[in-house]
Amino acid sequence: MSEIKYIDGGVCAAKGFRASGVHCGIRKNRTKRDLALIVSDKRASAAAVYTQNLVKGAPLLVTKKHIADGYAQAVVCNSGNANTCNANGVEIAEGMCTLVGTYAGVKSEDVIVASTGVIGQPLEIEPIANGMPALAAELSYDNSASAAESIMTTDTIQKSVAVEFVLDGKTCRMGGIAKGSGMIHPNMATMLVFVTTDAAICPKMLQKALSEDVKTSFNMVSIDGDTSTNDMVAVLANGMADNKEIAAADADFEVFCAALHAVTAKLCRLLAGDGEGATKLLTCKVTGGKTEEAAKTAAKSVICSSLLKAAMFGADANWGRVLCALGYSGADIDVNKVDVSFASAKGEIPVCRNGAGIEFSEEKAKEILLEKEIDILVGLNDGEFSAEAWGCDLTYDYVKINGDYRT
Amino acid sequence: MSEIKYIDGGVCAAKGFRASGVHCGIRKNRTKRDLALIVSDKRASAAAVYTQNLVKGAPLLVTKKHIADGYAQAVVCNSGNANTCNANGVEIAEGMCTLVGTYAGVKSEDVIVASTGVIGQPLEIEPIANGMPALAAELSYDNSASAAESIMTTDTIQKSVAVEFVLDGKTCRMGGIAKGSGMIHPNMATMLVFVTTDAAICPKMLQKALSEDVKTSFNMVSIDGDTSTNDMVAVLANGMADNKEIAAADADFEVFCAALHAVTAKLCRLLAGDGEGATKLLTCKVTGGKTEEAAKTAAKSVICSSLLKAAMFGADANWGRVLCALGYSGADIDVNKVDVSFASAKGEIPVCRNGAGIEFSEEKAKEILLEKEIDILVGLNDGEFSAEAWGCDLTYDYVKINGDYRT
Repeated sequence: MSEIKYIDGGVCAAKGFRASGVHCGIRKNRTKRDLALIVSDKRASAAAVYTQNLVKGAPLLVTKKHIADGYAQAVVCNSGNANTCNANGVEIAEGMCTLVGTYAGVKSEDVIVASTGVIGQPLEIEPIANGMPALAAELSYDNSASAAESIMTTDTIQKSVAVEFVLDGKTCRMGGIAKGSGMIHPNMATMLVFVTTDAAICPKMLQKALSEDVKTSFNMVSIDGDTSTNDMVAVLANGMADNKEIAAADADFEVFCAALHAVTAKLCRLLAGDGEGATKLLTCKVTGGKTEEAAKTAAKSVICSSLLKAAMFGADANWGRVLCALGYSGADIDVNKVDVSFASAKGEIPVCRNGAGIEFSEEKAKEILLEKEIDILVGLNDGEFSAEAWGCDLTYDYVKINGDYRT
Repeated sequence: MSEIKYIDGGVCAAKGFRASGVHCGIRKNRTKRDLALIVSDKRASAAAVYTQNLVKGAPLLVTKKHIADGYAQAVVCNSGNANTCNANGVEIAEGMCTLVGTYAGVKSEDVIVASTGVIGQPLEIEPIANGMPALAAELSYDNSASAAESIMTTDTIQKSVAVEFVLDGKTCRMGGIAKGSGMIHPNMATMLVFVTTDAAICPKMLQKALSEDVKTSFNMVSIDGDTSTNDMVAVLANGMADNKEIAAADADFEVFCAALHAVTAKLCRLLAGDGEGATKLLTCKVTGGKTEEAAKTAAKSVICSSLLKAAMFGADANWGRVLCALGYSGADIDVNKVDVSFASAKGEIPVCRNGAGIEFSEEKAKEILLEKEIDILVGLNDGEFSAEAWGCDLTYDYVKINGDYRT
């Protein structure tokens, strides 16, 4: 398989994609952009996955309809308001697409629409209508950063990844932007993620690639156990790299999937590490599972434990909480075979073997756990399956951010 | 049905139960008792429910064996160490029972043993052996408070409840003590709870009463989503009230179950309100569920949402998070029919009708949510079933307590 190289450029890394972002006034803070647009020069194959929450934001319903034919050409997204649980939500979401159609020269039925922010507050169309001319005018082939900023809510960093790879002898590019950073939990199409690529791939195979990928990428991230109402991952593939269109599960499809995973897995780490209030990125790496399901369930349970998350914030090697989380995970594991180690750039320290504690240096453990990126290594010693899940620590700032989010 | 009256006395309220608590040295803090003993004058019917965590503390295994015949006469419990994930855990737990046998004059096979505290640190028998003579010597018929204090970990208040009721013309009493206050989550026999009664009831009916009761009491409490390895609810019924032994699901059994629920439901509120770091008791009352399962699942999901818990800490009427939690609960509900109100001693305020926001006074909502006991009222408008779940807010102190629990 050919090399996959990380590059700059975000959603504008691939050929034929322009992006922009403006402050249109949904947010009161005038220094924060709140409306993003991504437009492909050509109509593109489109695929998406959505939240599994029964409460679904109006934009998701509109997007589903718009990409039912497998194609789209633009993405519009506002932050500051989720447009969810509002009586006129669908009308507003459709209105956003119509505005894109008017100002950016694409068909409104080819627009993917997304919203993120507070649930249950009416979203007015006026600021969006007022901002759209500038948003369309500022579209450019190197403006991914403006779009990435515009979709941020409580995020503290922009999340942007791009890669270069080769398909059919042609250089292809793929890039994505994402927003977190709370209300994030496995078993959904997590958070908002937009990926663009100039690779040629038919809608059916694009959807297949995405649906498979989220199982080991976004569905393995948890910030706080809350599954949002608005989450969506959407991919546009405009074919402008001129490779032969991927239309079957062949070798090219495998390369495409690997490139997609290079983008999504890195976005996962960015999302988890920038979870609300987070000071640390936690990665739980499970090996030796009897089944893939067991390994994944175990990894997710560890990452989701409030107690372990708080211990990691305190750099406390409280491995009993790892065992506890494995024990209630529901995964098919033998707790008497479990090994646990903590690792970071400062080294690795085994703390539990065969389900029981072993002696270890608390001093060394502290040194390891004071790092910003911590691996929790779990050996199930029960089979051949592995899994990886991403999360973050639970901190004072998580409480602060969410104790008064609306005001 | 006859009246159930709340009285004082905790686990010593019922006839023939002595209790005591001492500091034996498991905890370094000499001002905090860490070893509790409850002894019945007569061998008693015994029942228990245990954590559903696959990792089970050694004391649970020993207790299961000891009450397999349906009878027990004493409870011994230490705090400061969970005696879980230790190679010699069962040996230590058996050793604790032997010591009770030696000093308190009961058969060691009639002792229920429990431990609570850090997981995975070896528990030494020495301090327990040293403390047992004093523990047995201090047993008295009005010493429930010493036992209640001895089982506390991060609890800030003692949790004790007792009731008086009439069976077969005889006055009966029942009392319980409990410890929280973290690692508490539905779907288990939650936390440590010991209940004593002088009512006469056969072991089989006692177990039936307890197993049914926890479904609407302890299994409806969540502090932090973590299911502990050591949780146990145990009941001793010594028959000293001289009522005719309950041996079938008759009218007396119903009275007994009502008395039991009066004790357990109140302990639930005490546990939830004293959750780690909690400043507020949250009660989610769901009505109009299509099934009992739907109502219970919905209530638990709301109570477990980190985002809602943080909003309640901030007295923020962020009802969108209630809808969100209902939506991902997995319960069979129609989100478009959902009504939500917040209520407290300061009044009640509707905030959502038919799944959409309605106008409300933020000022009034704030006044209501600044109280210490908040009800989250959810109308599913989809059937006849109700459920109630208890929890607490998520605060800075939860993070503080759990960021550095071991040191």
